Parts: sequence; C-alpha cells; structure tokens
Amino acid sequence: MKLFFSSTSPYVRKVMVCAHELGLSSQIELLPAKASPVERDKSLVDKNPLGKVPTLITHEGISLYDSRVICEYLNDIGSGHLFPQDKSQKWEALTMQSLGDGLLDAALLARYETFLRPKELCWNEWVNGQIDKIQSSLTYFESLTLADKFHIGQITLACSLGYLDLRFEHLNWRQSHPKLKAWFEVISQRESVAKQWALAS
Amino acid sequence: MKLFFSSTSPYVRKVMVCAHELGLSSQIELLPAKASPVERDKSLVDKNPLGKVPTLITHEGISLYDSRVICEYLNDIGSGHLFPQDKSQKWEALTMQSLGDGLLDAALLARYETFLRPKELCWNEWVNGQIDKIQSSLTYFESLTLADKFHIGQITLACSLGYLDLRFEHLNWRQSHPKLKAWFEVISQRESVAKQWALAS
Repeated sequence: MKLFFSSTSPYVRKVMVCAHELGLSSQIELLPAKASPVERDKSLVDKNPLGKVPTLITHEGISLYDSRVICEYLNDIGSGHLFPQDKSQKWEALTMQSLGDGLLDAALLARYETFLRPKELCWNEWVNGQIDKIQSSLTYFESLTLADKFHIGQITLACSLGYLDLRFEHLNWRQSHPKLKAWFEVISQRESVAKQWALAS
Repeated sequence: MKLFFSSTSPYVRKVMVCAHELGLSSQIELLPAKASPVERDKSLVDKNPLGKVPTLITHEGISLYDSRVICEYLNDIGSGHLFPQDKSQKWEALTMQSLGDGLLDAALLARYETFLRPKELCWNEWVNGQIDKIQSSLTYFESLTLADKFHIGQITLACSLGYLDLRFEHLNWRQSHPKLKAWFEVISQRESVAKQWALAS
C-alpha cells in the first residue's frame, strides 16, 4: 500500500497509529505530499480530487480517503479491534473520533488563518470561534472517564492533543485539564503513538 | 429522537434523506439551531462541544455527531442498506461519502469567506483553492458510472449538488457535467430527496 503523507498532519498520524497497532506499518510506503489549501499538489489531486493527506492507495490500486475511511479499512484488513462492534461502544467511539476530528478541523483553520493567510487579512472573530471550539472540546474530553482500552476515539484524541503540543503550545492545555494530561502521559508511551511523535520532531 | 437542525445545512439534509429512506423521519423531532462558526449556539454546544448541526439526541439521551456517525446509526437502528456491507462496495461508498463531504467542506469555507467574513478581509487565493477542490471533485464524479443503487455515497453526492444549486448557482455545474446533471434529475425526484429540497426553498 502507499500513503500520501505529511509528517505533521494529525490525520496522517491517526492512520499511522492505527497501522502500527495493527502490525501493518511495514506494508505502507510513504509518499511525501505537499497538501496546502491554496497550492494544490497535482500528483495527489490525481488520486484524491480534494488534494488532501492522508490518501491511501490499496494493494489493488484503489484510492481511499479520508482518515476515517482509511483507519476503518486498515482495521478491517488487519482484523483489528480499533472500531468496536458492540453497539454501545461503537457509537461512543465514533462520536469521540468525530469530536477529535472536529477539534483538529478547528485547529487547522485557526492555524491557516494565522500562518498561511496574509496578516492584514486576518479576522480575529474567526480565530476566536475556532479556539472556542477547541476549548469546549477539551472541557468535554476532561469530563470523560477514559478507559484503558485504545479504540479509534482514543487514537483521535491522542493525535488531537499531540497536534496542540506541536502548533498551539500557547494554549497550555495541560494546565486546566489534569485528567487529560495524566491520560496523555501514559498514552504517549505506547509504541504506536511514540513513533508518530518522533517523526515530526 | 431529537435533531439539532438547520434547513439549509447540507449535512443535515444527508441525515434527513437517510431518515426518510429508512422510514424513521416521523421519530425525529427537529430542534432549530443557529450554528455559526463565529456566534456559537449555547444550547447546541451543551450537547456537542463543536456547536455544529446535525447533532442527534438518541432515544436514550446520547449525543451523536457528525452526519457520518448519525447516518450510520440511523441505518443501523432502521436495519437499512445505505451502508453496504460487501467489502468492495463498502470502501467505494465510504470514500464517495468522504469526497462529497469534502466538496461540501470546501463549499462552506468559500461561502463563509464571501458571506460571513468582512469584505475587506477576503483572501481570493483561499476562495480559489476551495472552488478548485469543488471543480476537481465534480470532474471525478462525472467520470463515475453512477449505478441505480442509492447508498450513503450517492446520498452525499445528491446533497452536495443540491447545495451547489442553493449557494453556488454561478458555478453552473450542469453545463460541464452532463452525466451528473442527468443523474441528479432522476435522484431529485426520489421522495426522500425531494422533501429536503422543499424544506429549504
């Protein structure tokens, strides 16, 4: 398999954490891609019209995206348990993934606004709205009892917190979220997670 | 069940088309919500920290989001066939959903840039990048053989094209996509789809 890839993309990290957990990472060839919303990477657009990473090319040559689809596909071919089948756990895990992805979408939009857009065109209310989404999401995650199990919801949360460390250090999320801080300390030592953090440093 | 709702949200429409297809729409009470990325709706944020529609409150009082999770949940409780189980069809349908959602994400960002953001802060390159994503996606969809079956990928495509009609009439997508035009004409007559179009008119 081939994966269009950027080492700092949190959505790519989700995929790679899943691949490591499932013992599939050695089967994935990484193809570096320049995915930017204003300068599109033509080789990537040929495989995914959105021009976004991660995009997976399967053994059969089929393009799969986005991270949610790829993670579920890897879980399927690796006969994994990252997507719970039990109904109560399933919807909880998928909604947790959705919230983590939503936190990341907001973080990416805030980052584009402050690091990609010309400074004179920055709209503070937009950035504040995105940061508020991040904060509300963190407050909610802090209220959860994060069990020891490691499913797609928890993987997404780990990648979200890792991205805040990479790009939003000034938010200092650990200070007001002690339970998340403790959980993330443990999770970051997991081999599948630690390997992804190392890639971007 | 209760659904936080906006009549023009294409993601809400996805959910409602699924609900109609599955015979579940009469079980869903609609709760109007003002989901804006800069002015957040507190009653919605209490149930979904991202403050986005659609958000579903299940019979058991559990919050589910986003549209992908809700659609799959409704398909499950309605014992539907909108999410193919056959492996080859499954990944095709989910990637098609992902592409339709990505087209919509780009369309929403372009709309926020031109209708929500103060005019003097508009960045043309950003809008052009989003429109280019829409165009690449349409070109790809035009190349597909869209079978008669009606799964989550096709529902998402229908809602994407409906949103372009609602907000991007000037793109005139029918002119250069005759196969999509013909397909959409047929699909729009389906009761589940026609009902959603009527809601926003």
